[in-house]
Formats: sequence, structure tokens, C-alpha cells
Amino acid sequence: MAHTAELIAVGTELLLGNIANTDAQMLSKELSALGVNVFHHSVVGDNPQRLREVVDIARKRADLIITTGGLGPTCDDLTKNVLAQCFGKKLVFNREAALRMEAYFKKLHPESGKMTENNYQQAYLPEGCVPFQNDWGTAPGCGFEADGVRVIMLPGPPSECGPMFRERAVPFLQDWADGVIVSRTLRIFGMGESAVEAQLREQMNAMKNPTLAPYAKEGEVELRLTAKAGDEDEARALIAPAEAALRKRFGSLIYGTDVPSLEWVCLELLKEKGLTVSVAESCTGGLLAQRFTDLPGSSAAFKGGVVSYWGQVKHDVLNVPNDLLFQYGAVSEPVARAMAEGVRTLTGADLALAITGVAGPDPDDRGNPVGLVYAAIAGQGETYVRVIHAAGSRQRIRYTSASHALDLLRRRLTGLDME
Amino acid sequence: MAHTAELIAVGTELLLGNIANTDAQMLSKELSALGVNVFHHSVVGDNPQRLREVVDIARKRADLIITTGGLGPTCDDLTKNVLAQCFGKKLVFNREAALRMEAYFKKLHPESGKMTENNYQQAYLPEGCVPFQNDWGTAPGCGFEADGVRVIMLPGPPSECGPMFRERAVPFLQDWADGVIVSRTLRIFGMGESAVEAQLREQMNAMKNPTLAPYAKEGEVELRLTAKAGDEDEARALIAPAEAALRKRFGSLIYGTDVPSLEWVCLELLKEKGLTVSVAESCTGGLLAQRFTDLPGSSAAFKGGVVSYWGQVKHDVLNVPNDLLFQYGAVSEPVARAMAEGVRTLTGADLALAITGVAGPDPDDRGNPVGLVYAAIAGQGETYVRVIHAAGSRQRIRYTSASHALDLLRRRLTGLDME
Repeated sequence: MAHTAELIAVGTELLLGNIANTDAQMLSKELSALGVNVFHHSVVGDNPQRLREVVDIARKRADLIITTGGLGPTCDDLTKNVLAQCFGKKLVFNREAALRMEAYFKKLHPESGKMTENNYQQAYLPEGCVPFQNDWGTAPGCGFEADGVRVIMLPGPPSECGPMFRERAVPFLQDWADGVIVSRTLRIFGMGESAVEAQLREQMNAMKNPTLAPYAKEGEVELRLTAKAGDEDEARALIAPAEAALRKRFGSLIYGTDVPSLEWVCLELLKEKGLTVSVAESCTGGLLAQRFTDLPGSSAAFKGGVVSYWGQVKHDVLNVPNDLLFQYGAVSEPVARAMAEGVRTLTGADLALAITGVAGPDPDDRGNPVGLVYAAIAGQGETYVRVIHAAGSRQRIRYTSASHALDLLRRRLTGLDME
Repeated sequence: MAHTAELIAVGTELLLGNIANTDAQMLSKELSALGVNVFHHSVVGDNPQRLREVVDIARKRADLIITTGGLGPTCDDLTKNVLAQCFGKKLVFNREAALRMEAYFKKLHPESGKMTENNYQQAYLPEGCVPFQNDWGTAPGCGFEADGVRVIMLPGPPSECGPMFRERAVPFLQDWADGVIVSRTLRIFGMGESAVEAQLREQMNAMKNPTLAPYAKEGEVELRLTAKAGDEDEARALIAPAEAALRKRFGSLIYGTDVPSLEWVCLELLKEKGLTVSVAESCTGGLLAQRFTDLPGSSAAFKGGVVSYWGQVKHDVLNVPNDLLFQYGAVSEPVARAMAEGVRTLTGADLALAITGVAGPDPDDRGNPVGLVYAAIAGQGETYVRVIHAAGSRQRIRYTSASHALDLLRRRLTGLDME
């Protein structure tokens, strides 16, 4: 039987418009993948009376209430207090939660010995609940069932809310699973969302099991196939032919299935082949290096790089000849090439990537338009340069440019054509 | 008298998590500036019955209901039909709206002569309403008053919703303008949220106008003072003494008021003083450079840097002596110092920052714990190194480490003590 969830976000900062309710978006996606209907989102401020009223409405129209925010000392653990009250539960001290918090606090402040008193307040949880240990912050969450309604409380910061939902709340909902739901996500770089959608529209509407849904994400497109079946093997068997058809259609634009990111794919390929890489960045200003080093274990293959934001640094550190800079300008095919070759020599890496372009908001002093970017890859043999016309905000242009450099690396490492 | 608004977003795409409710964020900000309280946001799907119920709840707790989305032919003008029904109004054909739509359609599709029939449906509006002409899309919005409640309907796409609110709905609310709300946000780096909150708890609860609220954000704390008064000067006069008291209490931990970020403050200071900076990064792997270059115009002061992820790059590019690396290890005070001095020499910048540490998830091969980080600043005169014990995820440790380096730069540029 299908269950119905209501998401209640607690926080005056949402009602003042300081932040958007991205927790609701994330949870809606996750719940939809679990086969739970989400019919309402509600947002309410740090106000006990109004929160109580919102909960009283929600329990009449949903059998799963998920709150986000309002945990922790700054709001007097508002959500926990009100929800416990609404469902006639006492708050009881949870020793394990307190010890966890102490340990987290000590790690955070090794010099000051003791956690402040108001932090202990967070170790009080509704009686009989399943505590959700918080490995990503301080305030623990929890889940309980009362009067035919399941209640889940999660912290507000997205970096805590997301992982706590996936790692703590999903197991808490396991017995609701009616059969299994299996998803496979194919990730595409190099084709826009509307172009992908236009190719798939009819197919998408016709497909029922598995379903097919595209998600645009930071200049990439994710295609998610979701099948529901009695067991996992059966679900996978439903997905397989649909996945094969998508692979045939999009070919090498698909850079991976169920992989976290393009940089992750590149890093795995590098490690597999025992190769190293370094980078030279102008307009992306460190973003490409940052995407590599965001990954634990990236030092196995990523040696480092140079952020040559100034022309002088391009020349002095990367050995880009001054006459190239003078003749073609910093945003040019020859300079991208020289940057890649320069950083490869400097660091002794097997492969090197370079990016130079105009991230905006204004054209450069040679009149090159915003979004014109050159990405280069150097290695043994010929250096290859791709011309990119990126669109959108400064942030978007920078991110897309870094993705193009990664795409060159992936294609080189897998022996694909460069375009 | 203060008015109370409820925002109702209509759209199944919100409940599926395809998009976040950014209209609610935008409208909340705008309404708060108008002095209207927003106590609830609600999201409901394209379902007449559920929308009706949500409206019936909203009219009891708000005297302004603003809907976003659910206008236009793809959803059968759901919102307009339901809201008119809820408030006992007929829909009547609006000739002017129809003519506007025809003109817009012709501009969009100059080749095909005629608007499709279902588009005309949008020209039906609740009797007696004020039509909101849509200069940014097709579906017109409108406003009306009934049973003591004002109702405003806006289109869902943010590019239409925002301008229509500002240019059409605000005049419709003009007679409500009841004073102004002014906020000031003080930003703190170097003290945790619970410590800040512990110092302010009593004061916060006692303050009514201005109010004081802390927000934790990426290892920083924001303190927001919000005053309501007859005009802006009066509101600012209410904030001034409260702000002065906070400045006295937190001193140099406050790095700015109404500023976007620590890196922005640093960049402004550098530009003001005509100084340049470069960076050398190990564990942050490009993140610090990326935070600088995220800012348009950063090339005025940011020259570039080196991501010396490998020891070999620290030695070959930054000239860190091998005996330092051997004797103390890469994560050490002497290496941080040598990295900062090395990149300063290499790039010829006035000031240089360096970061080396253990971002995790595992301790380094010398047994240095996750979160141990050294940040250094070099310039004319002595190089200064700060020892940091950062906590949290790899991402959090990297971000906090970069913030510490920026904090050193801010303190240096403003002549503050380094701790």
C-alpha cells in the first residue's frame, strides 16, 4: 500500500527568505524513489504554537511526517519538544547520544575540555524512538511511530539532512518497502537537458516499469531508470534492456552508471592505469584541482597544479612564451596548449590538463566573449585542445569548463574520440 | 497593523523534487522588506481537491495568500479555477488580457498567425480582480480581495514570478505599507555556533525590536539584527546600539557587516591597499584559489597559486627544502612556512598564503590526526603560522582550513592580532 508523506521544515530563516527549502527537494526525490507519495510540503517558523498546529494538520493527511530543522541548542530543540508533545511522548536522556556528542565536541575543540551545558539538551530524545546518530554534525535525529503515524526528525543543514536520511531514516522505513525498488543512473556529459529530453520524450511517457526520468545537474544530465519488482534480480532484469537502449542511443556521451561524478571516473581510470595528472588553470582558478582533491585518495594520481591567473604567472611558472601571450592573448588555443605542456613538464605528470577562457561577467580585454574557453590535454604524443562555448553564470561557466577538461581526460584514458 | 501572508506553491514538480521552491524564498524576502509577516509556506501538487483544502487552511491563518504556479494551459488553469471557487467568484473573460496574450504570442511565433484555443482560457480571470499583465511570459496573474483576505496569483517560473511580484503585486499592496523592516548581518569567523549562542542566549530572548538571531553557515556564524519601524532611519537607529554591543562583545571575530563572504572582504582590502596575493595549497587542493576566483574582478589582486598536492611538487615548484619535508613531514609548521614563502617568491606577490594538513578520511602516514592543519601567511617581515584543529567531514575540514587562511589575510591587512 502506498504511503503518504508530509515534509515540515522548521526555521524562521526560511520564512525570511534567507535560504531556500532544498531539504524538501532532496527528500522529495528520495521518497519518490522509495515509492512514498509526497503530497504536501510545509514551512513554519521557530514558533511552538504554529508548529503544533502544522503538525496537527499533517497527521490527518499523511502517515509519514518528516521534519527538517529546529533541532539543536539555538532553537531550544523546538522541533523535538513540540513533536514529542503532539504525540504524547516524554523526552528521556539518551546516554549514547550524549557520549557521541561529547566525542564530536572534543574532536572539534580538543583544547577546551567540556561541552557547554546547552549541548546536553540535545541528548534528550522522545521515549521509545530510534535515535539517528549524527556523523555529519552535532544534533542527533530520530524516528518513532505513534497513533499510526511515523515521525522522522532530521537536522536542517543539507550536509547533515541528506546523509542522515539515506543512512539512518531509510533503514527505519525498511519494513514499508513493498517489494524492492532498484535505480540505475546513467550520467551524460556533452549534451544539454532539453536535447536529451527531446530525444526521449515519447519513450519516457510510455515507460512504466522501469520508469525513466532525466535530471539536469550542473551542466550534466542524469538519466534515472527505476524498476519495482519482487526482488532485486527481477528489478535488475527489468532495467537491463532499457539501459542497453539508452547506451546505444547516447554512446560515449554516457560517462558512467551509478558513479558519483566525472572527476571520480577520471581518478579511477588513472589509478587503474597507474598514471598521474596535473593541471594548469586560468579562468577556473583552482576549481578543477579542487574537484580532484575533493575525492579521498586523489593523491594516488593527482600530483598538483598551477593556478596561473595572471599572465606573468603563466610565463614565469608555466613557461608559456611571452610572444604567444602577446600575439594570441591568454584566451587562445596556443596558450592553452602551452599551459598544458608547461605544467606537465613542471610536475613530471604523465598527463596534464589546462583551461583558459573568459568566465565573465565581462568580455576580456581582447574582446573575447564571455563563455569562450579552451581546454587542453597534454601527454606523450600530441596535445589536444577543445574549444568550448559555455553559457550561464560565471559559476556555471567555470564548472562546465572544468567538466570539459575532465571529459578530455576520460576520453583519452578510454581511447575514445576527443569530440 | 501587521499583515500575515501565506505562500502556496502549486506544482507536482515541487513534490517530486525536480525543482526547489525558490519562488517562496524570493517572495519571503520581498514581503519581509514590505513589513508583511510570512508565517507559512505550503506546497501542493496539481490536484484541485488538495489545493482547495490548503487554501481553506491558509485563509484562517493569513490575510494575504500568494499562490505561485498552476496558471496557464498545461495545468488547466488549476490555481485560478480553485481560488475563484474558494472565494465564490466567477471567472469572466478579460478582453485586455486576451489582446496582450495575442501580441505576446505573435512576438514569439511571428510565422504562425494564430494563438491556440487553450491559450484563450488564460484570459478568464476572477470577477472584480486587478489583472497583472505578464511582460515576461504568457499567463497573466491577478489580485483580488474577498472575505477580508487578499489573494495574489503569480506564475511559477522564477523569471516571471519575481518581476510580476515587484512590478504588479507590490502596487496592489501599496495601501498596506506599514513601516519598514531593516536587517543587518554581522559575520563571525573563529567561534562555534553554540559558543556564540551561549554568550547571547539571555540577550536574544529579551530583545524584541530589533530581534537578534544567529545562523550557522559553513563553519561561520551570522548574527542578524532585524528592526521594524516607521521609516528606514528609525529602524537603523534601533539597530545601532544593539550592533555596537555585539561589536564590543565579539570584537575582531566579526569580519564584516552585510558582506557576502570572508574572501570578498579580503579581496576588497587587497584592492583598497593595492596589494597582490598568491596561494600554495596542499590539503585544500585548489579550494582557496577557487574561493578567490569565484569573485568577479578577483584578478585585480589574486595572481594565482600552486596546488602542491605531492611532496615532489612542494619541492620542485615551491622550493620547499627536501630536508624539511624529510625531517618534519609535509604536515608541519616549517613546511607551511616554506610553502608560503616559496609561492610568494615564485609569483612575486606582496602577500602569500599556504595551507598544509590532513583533510582525511585517514590520518597521514606520519600519524598526524585528521583535521590537523597549518595555515601560513608570508609578506614583508615575519611569516606567521596558525595551527588549526578542524572537525567534520573532509569537505568541512577543507573549507574551514581555507577560511583560516583568509582570516590570517584579513587580520594582516587590518593590523589585527593574528589569533
